Amino acid sequence: MIKRIAPDVEVIDITHGIRRQDVLQGALVLANTLPYMPVGVHMAVVDPGVGSGRKPLALHGGNGRLFVGPDNGLLLLAAERLGGVEEAVELTNREYRLEPVAATFHGRDIFAPAAAHLAAGVALGELGPAVQVPELVRLDVPAPSVGERRIRATVLYVDRFGNVQLNLTPAHLEQVGIEPGTTVEVEAGFERYYAVAARTFAEVRRGDIVLYEDAYRNIALAINQGNAAEMFSARVGQELRLAALR
Amino acid sequence: MIKRIAPDVEVIDITHGIRRQDVLQGALVLANTLPYMPVGVHMAVVDPGVGSGRKPLALHGGNGRLFVGPDNGLLLLAAERLGGVEEAVELTNREYRLEPVAATFHGRDIFAPAAAHLAAGVALGELGPAVQVPELVRLDVPAPSVGERRIRATVLYVDRFGNVQLNLTPAHLEQVGIEPGTTVEVEAGFERYYAVAARTFAEVRRGDIVLYEDAYRNIALAINQGNAAEMFSARVGQELRLAALR
Amino acid sequence: MIKRIAPDVEVIDITHGIRRQDVLQGALVLANTLPYMPVGVHMAVVDPGVGSGRKPLALHGGNGRLFVGPDNGLLLLAAERLGGVEEAVELTNREYRLEPVAATFHGRDIFAPAAAHLAAGVALGELGPAVQVPELVRLDVPAPSVGERRIRATVLYVDRFGNVQLNLTPAHLEQVGIEPGTTVEVEAGFERYYAVAARTFAEVRRGDIVLYEDAYRNIALAINQGNAAEMFSARVGQELRLAALR
Repeated sequence: MIKRIAPDVEVIDITHGIRRQDVLQGALVLANTLPYMPVGVHMAVVDPGVGSGRKPLALHGGNGRLFVGPDNGLLLLAAERLGGVEEAVELTNREYRLEPVAATFHGRDIFAPAAAHLAAGVALGELGPAVQVPELVRLDVPAPSVGERRIRATVLYVDRFGNVQLNLTPAHLEQVGIEPGTTVEVEAGFERYYAVAARTFAEVRRGDIVLYEDAYRNIALAINQGNAAEMFSARVGQELRLAALR
Repeated sequence: MIKRIAPDVEVIDITHGIRRQDVLQGALVLANTLPYMPVGVHMAVVDPGVGSGRKPLALHGGNGRLFVGPDNGLLLLAAERLGGVEEAVELTNREYRLEPVAATFHGRDIFAPAAAHLAAGVALGELGPAVQVPELVRLDVPAPSVGERRIRATVLYVDRFGNVQLNLTPAHLEQVGIEPGTTVEVEAGFERYYAVAARTFAEVRRGDIVLYEDAYRNIALAINQGNAAEMFSARVGQELRLAALR
Repeated sequence: MIKRIAPDVEVIDITHGIRRQDVLQGALVLANTLPYMPVGVHMAVVDPGVGSGRKPLALHGGNGRLFVGPDNGLLLLAAERLGGVEEAVELTNREYRLEPVAATFHGRDIFAPAAAHLAAGVALGELGPAVQVPELVRLDVPAPSVGERRIRATVLYVDRFGNVQLNLTPAHLEQVGIEPGTTVEVEAGFERYYAVAARTFAEVRRGDIVLYEDAYRNIALAINQGNAAEMFSARVGQELRLAALR
């Protein structure tokens, strides 16, 4: 669809591997990867509310980046990590849609045409009326609770290797005295495990549970040559409690 | 292979997700998606008969579109939806093949080279001798049986979300009085289910069975946030009986 | 990452389907496919040793081809099949990395930037100091043992269709008198099966075990419309014994 409207535009496919209807996973992957992508028009569609009243959006990020997708929080984490939203419009202009719009496939009929027209130079304001930025739907990403020696963290997502991303940054670990080499007690429900904080898997033995900073500066749990998500029966939204062992 | 022959040609990958040897699924996906793709050389390979006598083909669609693939019905549904076949040739000219041709990988050695040469401007007739259009192999897509109040439909394919595409169009539903909001009795073997005809999933409750027109104007069964194929144990070729409840 | 550094370079994705940490499978797929790919910069990353001392490499293949990847044997099978390695360097020059380099994602921070800079015309020697070719890590690909009538072969890899690639070429089969049409006894552990040597699946019946030369000139076992890997419980490294039945 993009190539029909803007044949000279280059399309880079980041992923088609987001779990069905998992808006949070989509938002996290987008926020993690866009800082490494060329400036452009970033279209993302994870859209369980297609056909309901949720608005189709285009956003201007103020740093040359444009965003296209549904108003369900999918775009905002990435846009804010990259400098915030300067302008938002609702995609209502029928000239820039594929009419008749299918009830269940706005990716093809609304979002891709809008992204293509933006890439071809159409001004954001042409696509529809302004939406106030504070009115945009936001995801409720849980914050960790950090005590003197303990952290209550939440599982944000599980990747295809079974690595478990937590809602933590390296700064949170420092606050409770976890550093490379520290043994960390991990409680998941009534189960208790022991992980090692490490910079790389090469620092630990096969089968060890590793608490590490992943390539996007998020804290994650993994098992060296194993599947941490299976061991912890980890699911998105689950609470884990971490404590440094002295 | 295409880029070696025609480096400036743009390759757009529609899917590598067709089930192994499922020619009907390939034909349906091609017919569904090509109307939304730019005009070009459309190559498709689902080829259980590779190495047998089935002909390798190139077709001229008469609207600027060219088709390349095996003579097993894969291409014809799409070509006919887009205006029919004007000319067909068998890909026998060794100049436009990668010789020696591997016995089991004509995608690489016959079809991709032919598509690349066509995209680079070689005339269809150069690739081999003409084949009469009525001699091309056709898929036997089952027709539904539509009574006054009942439809016998057949499952055409099941997508990765478990949505079940039937051999029905919106017109078939109208004939038996099914419209958005109608409750529909669905019989699968000795089991009976109740679905709701709806325009979008947003109109029904989580877990409801939905009978809807999909984004390609086919009628399909789905479960809102669930897997219809699992519930119906649906497989391609299976018969389902639908009736409107008054 | 490549497009940020070299926006005009064309990126062709061969596969993202190599099993996690399976360096041998990656090396075999690379060696099988590169002969059919345009000359260019070939980057491959299957990197279980990321974060350990393994060197990041760029190689000059002497035929216009360049290779980028970890020093774990991944690149050498392909490079040698395409004419050998003329020059090797370790990727240490920080100017051609994304700094700070993440401990666990050298694909993004070291290999992709190096590949992009090479594609944009940076000389190999700019990327770091020379490494002696005989010092490069090599994979230990097992050699078959070929007797007068019997072959001990090893499973090299299993593809997504369940086809089982062996460490054999057509010449090995000839040595023991296996040719198209020969019935072949296959012993796997204590189990014994009977396969047919054939050029294509179309020559055998549905369900037959086929010993054939695949499209890359490797010998493989398959089941016509079935899954050979499941039948043999085949795993990489497993030994199979083949003998022609007279």
